Amino acid sequence: MRTQDLIARKRDGRALAPGELKAFVQGVVSGDVSLPQAAAMLMAMVLNGLDDTETAALTFAMLHSGRVLELKLVSRYKVDKHSTGGVGDKVSLVLAPLVAAAGVPVPMISGRSLGHTGGTLDKLEAIPGFRTDLEADEFERQVARIGCAMIGQTAELAPADRILYGLRDATATVECIPLICASILSKKLAEGIDALVLDVKCGRGAFMKSREDARRLARTMVEVGRQLGKPATALITRMDEPLGRAAGNAVEVRETIACLRGGGPSDLMEVTYALGVEMLAAAGVGEDVADRRRRLESVLDSGQALDRFRALIEAQGGNPAVADDPDLLPRAGAVREVRYSGAQSAVVRAVDALAVGECAVLLGAGRKRESDAVDPAAGVDALVRAGERVEPGDVLCRLHAADTKRLDEGEQRLGDAFAFGDPEPAASLILERIG
Amino acid sequence: MRTQDLIARKRDGRALAPGELKAFVQGVVSGDVSLPQAAAMLMAMVLNGLDDTETAALTFAMLHSGRVLELKLVSRYKVDKHSTGGVGDKVSLVLAPLVAAAGVPVPMISGRSLGHTGGTLDKLEAIPGFRTDLEADEFERQVARIGCAMIGQTAELAPADRILYGLRDATATVECIPLICASILSKKLAEGIDALVLDVKCGRGAFMKSREDARRLARTMVEVGRQLGKPATALITRMDEPLGRAAGNAVEVRETIACLRGGGPSDLMEVTYALGVEMLAAAGVGEDVADRRRRLESVLDSGQALDRFRALIEAQGGNPAVADDPDLLPRAGAVREVRYSGAQSAVVRAVDALAVGECAVLLGAGRKRESDAVDPAAGVDALVRAGERVEPGDVLCRLHAADTKRLDEGEQRLGDAFAFGDPEPAASLILERIG
Repeated sequence: MRTQDLIARKRDGRALAPGELKAFVQGVVSGDVSLPQAAAMLMAMVLNGLDDTETAALTFAMLHSGRVLELKLVSRYKVDKHSTGGVGDKVSLVLAPLVAAAGVPVPMISGRSLGHTGGTLDKLEAIPGFRTDLEADEFERQVARIGCAMIGQTAELAPADRILYGLRDATATVECIPLICASILSKKLAEGIDALVLDVKCGRGAFMKSREDARRLARTMVEVGRQLGKPATALITRMDEPLGRAAGNAVEVRETIACLRGGGPSDLMEVTYALGVEMLAAAGVGEDVADRRRRLESVLDSGQALDRFRALIEAQGGNPAVADDPDLLPRAGAVREVRYSGAQSAVVRAVDALAVGECAVLLGAGRKRESDAVDPAAGVDALVRAGERVEPGDVLCRLHAADTKRLDEGEQRLGDAFAFGDPEPAASLILERIG
Repeated sequence: MRTQDLIARKRDGRALAPGELKAFVQGVVSGDVSLPQAAAMLMAMVLNGLDDTETAALTFAMLHSGRVLELKLVSRYKVDKHSTGGVGDKVSLVLAPLVAAAGVPVPMISGRSLGHTGGTLDKLEAIPGFRTDLEADEFERQVARIGCAMIGQTAELAPADRILYGLRDATATVECIPLICASILSKKLAEGIDALVLDVKCGRGAFMKSREDARRLARTMVEVGRQLGKPATALITRMDEPLGRAAGNAVEVRETIACLRGGGPSDLMEVTYALGVEMLAAAGVGEDVADRRRRLESVLDSGQALDRFRALIEAQGGNPAVADDPDLLPRAGAVREVRYSGAQSAVVRAVDALAVGECAVLLGAGRKRESDAVDPAAGVDALVRAGERVEPGDVLCRLHAADTKRLDEGEQRLGDAFAFGDPEPAASLILERIG
């Protein structure tokens, strides 16, 4: 079938057969499907949708468009976690060494900052010397040796995703649950994992603003994982406010170290433990939720998780001394404290994650364009949290950037990110479990 | 506004403002809008539609993406005709010299064969030496001198259309009335005409299969012409059967000459006169329909229309002697008669225009791919017509091609193009007038 006839089928609202989706994906990689044809197909998919069977077939074709790692050197059950992206979301940095220390290997391939959300790779690269570009074989040996490795997508994994993902932002075809699902799962399943735990962020600071969309994405990913023989569970977690007290790169590594030393913010640890419990459950480690939680707390309290983080840094070329002296992390040229200007004491009602995330991008922590370089030292920290009381003149947050012009831009974007008044009753960040 | 935000507006079903459509079209020409972005926008337009105001703004932007001829040398009111494409549709070849001879200048820019339909340029180029690639100035001088010229789109006219048109076939975004309208009108209005008469073909052998689609396209074009200050009228004409008795290139020139000599098939002349009457009316020539028809018949009967055809050929470098000796036209290497194989006399109930058109393509008269060369001698002629009686062994049509392999392919495609039995009562080919 000619490519234009395939596109016409989706344009006309018909379901594509697995063989048709495979032909499309293979054509994208071989060049037989031109980029304009791929763009037209993506828009037809956005507007006419893909059902779960089509999404699974698309994911399978994208997964097998390149090399699929087997990680034969790692005999134990391997589990990874993926987050759909939030502000201050350094969970992966804490979770990978934590879960590895608890006995479950975590082979993790991550992404970079996107829009107002941070990227695990950018955060790791704030650690002096840290390499995220390991070859697949190096990656496998490291997981076998220390139980975890954190790298970026290599050229040989899911090349169809790299091409389609590169098209989607420019062609306004990002917001589409089946395409998001296929992109995430094709990359994640290429890592050679046995199961996957998903953190589907929902709220003001997430790509999925509504509970309904988050639920649809979570259900689709869990169902597609099932169809492809990879058990997946999803937690829908609240992302209305930043996670923890920092959003940026070095500032988040610093907070990661605090978490691994037992001094992490409660919201961040709540999400980290909830996802860790799911990962242990997927691997059949532990008796029940309480036991799994105890195992995680135990390796954290004993310092084994921090040891694993040190080993991870060292294995990937970074300076492991940062785990003991965070002042070795890059520092910004300009720092500014943003203070509460009210005349009397007040309670923080809310902190707008989207505003904080966009502020961090303007400070230099993220990218306005794909080609932009990230400033490892830029970001926001010392953030107050909802429910906390502030007195006149108290610090609401601290901004880090290369120069005062960037500080001005970031501060301006912050605008009325902080709301004061009666806070909503504190609710769990874990909204729902799907799996 | 970024291009992806423009695309997102149409993806989300919103109407684009004239300035937004202008920015899109200018970006397509400058390269600021990439081809994948253009393809995604086209698909969003196909699926979410464009209203008449948007279609007019898109047409206007495409028209002004390049040079717009003024034809100042031609002082009289200039009218052109455009057909949406059919099988055996050589109306332009008869009509341009006929209307020019009746006193209305016809500056005509035409296209090539597309799918199963023939193209005016391919037909003209079957005349030995005929050049369709005149420069704009040459085109203008010729219209001023002899009242008509027939050329192809030049590089400087409506460049945005050339780029978008080139994308549409490959991206399954052809079937979209606003895009069809903008493509046709942007090219036609760039010719420097004062008014336009449209022949919207409808039926088995047309791109618009249903009356409703044909009516929507006709109404859209008439309305957009009105909004752009160029009066347009449309005739919806039946295209279930081939027009005349020939489909191809040289075979259609031969039939054109027969028409201009007064011996044209009645169906072809019916459509030609109806469109000619509209063109004269648009130019304010003649009193009423009957008077305009008499004027056209008069220049045909007197030989003035044929003289004008001879002058047209000579002006464009062709051999004008073909008008007197059609045997000077190219002849095919292989000819085959397809005969009625029934055991007893029968009446032809219908001739399938789509089958005949596709047969002509396979014989070599059209293109399977855009890069294919056309065989000027290939085609079908001596076609029987619905309502005619055939005896066993009578010729149903004659096939012309370069070799017997092509004849075989064409004959096979013909299949059951001819149906026999009680014919439907002969109805007018002119189904409706919109304007």
